[in-house]
Order: sequence, then structure tokens, then C-alpha cells
Amino acid sequence: MKHAPALAQLIDALRTLPGVGPKSAQRMAFHLLQDGRAGARALAESLTQALQLVARCKRCRMLTQGELCFVCASNQRDVTQLCVVESPADFVAIEQSGSFRGRYFVLMGHLSPLDGIGPAQLGIRDLEAILDGGEVTELILATNSTVEGEATAHYLSELAQRRKIRSSRIAHGVPMGGELEYVDGGTLARALSGRQILS
Amino acid sequence: MKHAPALAQLIDALRTLPGVGPKSAQRMAFHLLQDGRAGARALAESLTQALQLVARCKRCRMLTQGELCFVCASNQRDVTQLCVVESPADFVAIEQSGSFRGRYFVLMGHLSPLDGIGPAQLGIRDLEAILDGGEVTELILATNSTVEGEATAHYLSELAQRRKIRSSRIAHGVPMGGELEYVDGGTLARALSGRQILS
Repeated sequence: MKHAPALAQLIDALRTLPGVGPKSAQRMAFHLLQDGRAGARALAESLTQALQLVARCKRCRMLTQGELCFVCASNQRDVTQLCVVESPADFVAIEQSGSFRGRYFVLMGHLSPLDGIGPAQLGIRDLEAILDGGEVTELILATNSTVEGEATAHYLSELAQRRKIRSSRIAHGVPMGGELEYVDGGTLARALSGRQILS
Repeated sequence: MKHAPALAQLIDALRTLPGVGPKSAQRMAFHLLQDGRAGARALAESLTQALQLVARCKRCRMLTQGELCFVCASNQRDVTQLCVVESPADFVAIEQSGSFRGRYFVLMGHLSPLDGIGPAQLGIRDLEAILDGGEVTELILATNSTVEGEATAHYLSELAQRRKIRSSRIAHGVPMGGELEYVDGGTLARALSGRQILS
């Protein structure tokens, strides 16, 4: 079974999307060329436009349109707190929680020497420039709790320490509403070692 | 939390894809604009190209490039058997099973009067023209086993009967390798009523 060349090419292009396998890609391609031709045209146009217009925020590296993202452009934010995240999706997740009023810095990855990703690729010089600016008093490390995320957090905490800026790590433990019974051992171990004295 | 306009537009366009919700659309958009810029360009191009080049096979309505699909263009197929399916994905599934050597006819849907989908929308005139051609001796009805699929199969079997062409319906029952224990009641009822005498 071989598809027509233009169709096969579209299926291949759709497969590069995260979470899309061969079956879903085929389903998407048929949908786009069958009932969804208007949507297909809109998708092609918005892709081309986004590639032209969307770039990184000059200050925090978040994907945005124009010089600064809406957080960096706002004068309503607490400039003393800087939250470092690995990806734009993490930025969005924290922002949507409504629990943080400071600014962000998006690494766009984590330290991973084997993949050739060092401080330069993560824009650490830009981060150091912000820290040297003197406004930030707390660096909140919200990288993932993976080996690479922890290593990155450790590296960044040393950068802060050298500048006598306080650094903190977001808490890891049992999720709110989660039942202990279903939480994995690693998370439970972390919840126990990170226990807080109540009285 | 509001995204930059071009980014929001891209996320909306991605949400029109089947099986893609708001979270996946955001994840895809970030991926396309972050690490996947080359893939994004390729996707935009292949979409535009596919919209231009891919149309329906003049004979069987399958999505293809050029006049005829590879099945209708081949002279290796059994022209006496015509298999009617609802969608291009069904065409692909049967073709990949390697168990059918005849030709296809793709309805691109099923009869659904409430949605305004009647014989005209399903290209039934084209199907009748093929049946009137005199080559086909068996019309295999491989529409889905939904209410609409069954109604469509019934309608098509009457078309065949009027022309004294044999029509058949694909078998429904317990999937191969499936365990009775986990098969739903409707399928079991169908498997029993469709039982075949062995000896």
C-alpha cells in the first residue's frame, strides 16, 4: 500500500508532531484533505505566519511576538522574584496556576553534556546578566525533577550563591488530592525527606 | 494567560486536527516553533502542496494524485469484485490486510438524512455507472457496523439486486485472537446469529 507522493509527504510531515504516530498522521491527513480543507488552509497559513512572527522574548526567552513577552512587558510583576523553567509549556502551566507574580526565565531545555547542551545553549549568559542587574533577590528553580533537571537546578543555585542571591527549589511530593496508595516510591521518598515541621 | 496572537492562531488551527485537544495543540505549537522549525516549514509546504495536488480518484473517489488511484490504474486487479468502504482510511486498512484483489469505491461518508447526506453526496450515481458497466459481479459492502453504516449497506444491496448483481456484507463477530470474555454483548450476539455450519 503506497500513498500518492503529496499525500505520503503530508503524512510524514504530520508525524514529526509530538505524540503523533503513523495511524494518527494518516487520519489527520485524510481529515485535512477530505472535510477539513478550509482548516488545512488555515493551518498552513498560521504556520507560515507564526514562523515569521513568533520569536523569543529578548529578556526571558519565552516564545512570543514582538520584543518582550507579556510578563516581561508588564509593570505589574514582582521583579525581585525570577522563576527558571525548562520550557514554554512550564511557563504557561505556572502562569495558569495564578500563584506566581514574578518574572520567568525559560531555558528551552536542560543541561545535557552528552547532547552538547551546555550553559551557552540555555542562554545562561542572559540569565547571569539579569542576576547581575541587581533587581532579583530570589531565584526560584522550577526545572523538572529528572536527573538533568536536578543537575541544572544545582548549577543555577551555584550561580545565585556566587552573587549572594537566595535560590529556592519548588517542592516535590505527593500531589494535592493524590492518594498515598497510588503514589510511586520515588515521590513518597521525596515527600518524606522533604517533610516540614508543623509544631 | 494569553498567548501572542500568531501563537494563539496556530494553536487554534492545530485544534481542528482530529484527536487534538487544547493541551496537545499547545504542545505541538511550542514544538513546531522551538526545536521543530524545519519540520514546521515542511508541514506548511506539504499541506499547501497536498491541497493543490491531492484530489479524488475519478473512478473510486479515493484521495489520490492524478486522475486515477493506484488500484484503479492497475491492470492486475480483479474487476469483477467491487468493495464499498466509507472512508479512505478503510480503503487503506483493507488494502494493507493484503486479502483483497478487487477494486474499491469510497463513499466518503454514509447515508445520514438528518445531516443532509443522501445518495448524491456519496457519489452513488458514479457507483451505479460502474455497476451498469457490466464488469462487476459482486458488490462487497464493507461499511461500518453502525446504524448508518448498516442502512447504507442495505441501500446499496438493493441497488445491486435491481441489476441482478450479487451483494455481500463483510462478516462481523469476535475479532481474531480476541477473548470472548472481553467482547461486548452486541458483538457476541452478532457472532452467534452469524454462526457458520461446520459439518
